[in-house]
Amino acid sequence: MTTLTDDPTTLGVVGGGQLGRMLAEAAAPLGVEVVVLDPTPDCPAAAVARDQVVADFDDPEGVARLAARADALTVEIELADPDLLAAVRDDEGVPVHPDPETVRTTSDKLREAETLGEAGVPVPAFRRVDGAADLEAALDVLGAPLMLKARRGGYDGRGNAPVDSVAAAREAFGDLEGLVAEELVELEREVSVMGVRGDGERATYPVAENVHEAEILRESVVPARADDETRERASEVARDVLDVLDGRGVFGIELFETTDGEVLANEIAPRPHNSGHYTIEAATTSQFEQHARAVLGLPLGSTHLRGAAAMANVLGDGEDARPVRLHGVDDALAAPGVHLHWYGKREARPLRKLGHLTATAADGVETPLDAVRAARDGLSFE
Amino acid sequence: MTTLTDDPTTLGVVGGGQLGRMLAEAAAPLGVEVVVLDPTPDCPAAAVARDQVVADFDDPEGVARLAARADALTVEIELADPDLLAAVRDDEGVPVHPDPETVRTTSDKLREAETLGEAGVPVPAFRRVDGAADLEAALDVLGAPLMLKARRGGYDGRGNAPVDSVAAAREAFGDLEGLVAEELVELEREVSVMGVRGDGERATYPVAENVHEAEILRESVVPARADDETRERASEVARDVLDVLDGRGVFGIELFETTDGEVLANEIAPRPHNSGHYTIEAATTSQFEQHARAVLGLPLGSTHLRGAAAMANVLGDGEDARPVRLHGVDDALAAPGVHLHWYGKREARPLRKLGHLTATAADGVETPLDAVRAARDGLSFE
Repeated sequence: MTTLTDDPTTLGVVGGGQLGRMLAEAAAPLGVEVVVLDPTPDCPAAAVARDQVVADFDDPEGVARLAARADALTVEIELADPDLLAAVRDDEGVPVHPDPETVRTTSDKLREAETLGEAGVPVPAFRRVDGAADLEAALDVLGAPLMLKARRGGYDGRGNAPVDSVAAAREAFGDLEGLVAEELVELEREVSVMGVRGDGERATYPVAENVHEAEILRESVVPARADDETRERASEVARDVLDVLDGRGVFGIELFETTDGEVLANEIAPRPHNSGHYTIEAATTSQFEQHARAVLGLPLGSTHLRGAAAMANVLGDGEDARPVRLHGVDDALAAPGVHLHWYGKREARPLRKLGHLTATAADGVETPLDAVRAARDGLSFE
Repeated sequence: MTTLTDDPTTLGVVGGGQLGRMLAEAAAPLGVEVVVLDPTPDCPAAAVARDQVVADFDDPEGVARLAARADALTVEIELADPDLLAAVRDDEGVPVHPDPETVRTTSDKLREAETLGEAGVPVPAFRRVDGAADLEAALDVLGAPLMLKARRGGYDGRGNAPVDSVAAAREAFGDLEGLVAEELVELEREVSVMGVRGDGERATYPVAENVHEAEILRESVVPARADDETRERASEVARDVLDVLDGRGVFGIELFETTDGEVLANEIAPRPHNSGHYTIEAATTSQFEQHARAVLGLPLGSTHLRGAAAMANVLGDGEDARPVRLHGVDDALAAPGVHLHWYGKREARPLRKLGHLTATAADGVETPLDAVRAARDGLSFE
């Protein structure tokens, strides 16, 4: 039984980017304070967190300082070190969610695909690639082109490239160690489900539909414009994925809907996810409040969708890194029902996620999608 | 034209209670950082604000330090000193909203009633009381009992008492200086409208209905259960009130609906208001985001109501101040669609506002009202 006292609960978060920022915004109404660990002083989350530990994600001393202040630890970035998380859990007795082993699994695309496949979750065919011979074999078995992915460290599509030959792969990846090759499936659409594992309970949000360009999420709409059967199948696969994971928290489960009607699990993020940002305005409980509830073992909130919604990312443009200067904000703020979420990053880099826009409607995703597109297209960095 | 840059906008707020906390939660998505001034270290807003200046509300040096860090100043507490606010505006050139003169007016119940009355806004009949003779005259003219109010420093009903004689007034107020006597109107219901003055635009939220006990707000529902004509009249009076005020920001406009169908202006708060907390979940733009937008001269957001809503306050009980220990939180969190807003106050005092609960519905206030009452009644401090 939870008691709110004069000693507020502190959630320690490895990573202090926009996910940490929105987590801190959402945790406060629960009476939960957030302390983040991030190497960048004045990281996006710092403005709304109780405090920031300035340290690298894999700095043992930094993680120990974070753990010493926290009633529970979680992650908002794949670069968190599972060994360090397991060590503070075991040595300091601080609960860590999701389970560090699950963080380890989802941070390695090969291990993730193996784990899902072994549990009977449908995934695209894949093969381990450590060298040219492996890749030749993969091209034989999976066909060319195939999707080649770095097992570790990739995010927002960095470290993914479609390749049709060893030469092309060398150009994209340099040496060919630590990769996984995946069949290129024919996509009807990309969808995702935010799933949550609580203390003895599970829940899923409705199926969202996502548009990526150059491997970076650009837009999401919810509900996905798939037929009922496909949406039900996607929710089923997401629930099966949740069964494979350990520990509590929100998980971003990206799925492929293939042209022949299959649903395959693609990637899993052990944390709130860009394609779930719509939940802030459109769901009864946002994915960020839900993550705080789950990690702390509080009852889960309702995942009910209050209406249709669309989300568009605001990405850095241009060729180089430079200080942020975003114009046209007034028009976006004046657009009826459009919500701005600005992350407070100091530097714009090409395709860097700097903010997002959400709009809702009673039903039908076209109107909110038009609204967020118009708002986004009215913004400029020049 | 607003530009978001690598130098985030800072909103300075005099006061760091729950209103400042919810303001900081709501300002962050706009890319706005909040610094609060409050004499209590670790005040409720401190957990989510960028920083806190620890100083008394009327400390010139503290207000100057706040102003030095802020792109604009606002208030979340009536105890802000209008002279100090005017001085930093004039000397440091920091915009202050609402206008310090309006803060002065609304912090003095006599001046407020005079200002509204002179502008033709309907108010209960009132008389200035400075001494027993004034009170005798007031009892003669306004009838007995009447509502006697301290002109300054009252909030949450402190400083208000119905009295029917000079003796009763002495018992409630000690000496009889600095008071205002008001006719006791026969109430059909108490309602309120959150109004907002932006940069060249005005807006009002729908009419809420409020239940007070012992002069403290207990519950609000929206839309108010008044007939259409009365609601329209209440909105009209609220718009007239907005015309009387100066500067930008959200204003909590409390109104009386009398048994003979009149709508009278009661009290005005120059800031977001407890009876507008429902806007966080139930309106397209929350009153807190709206206040940040208005004060900073950004375009106003939509005041559209997304559905019906009910709000119940969580108040301290018992006889004495003591460290907070609130039990039964799990049941409140597990109630479908009930939202908790906990303010992080360390000490429970009788009738102190410690948090609130909101629930929404597509339409009809009874279901969400039942939900927040059940959740509130399941909480206990023992």
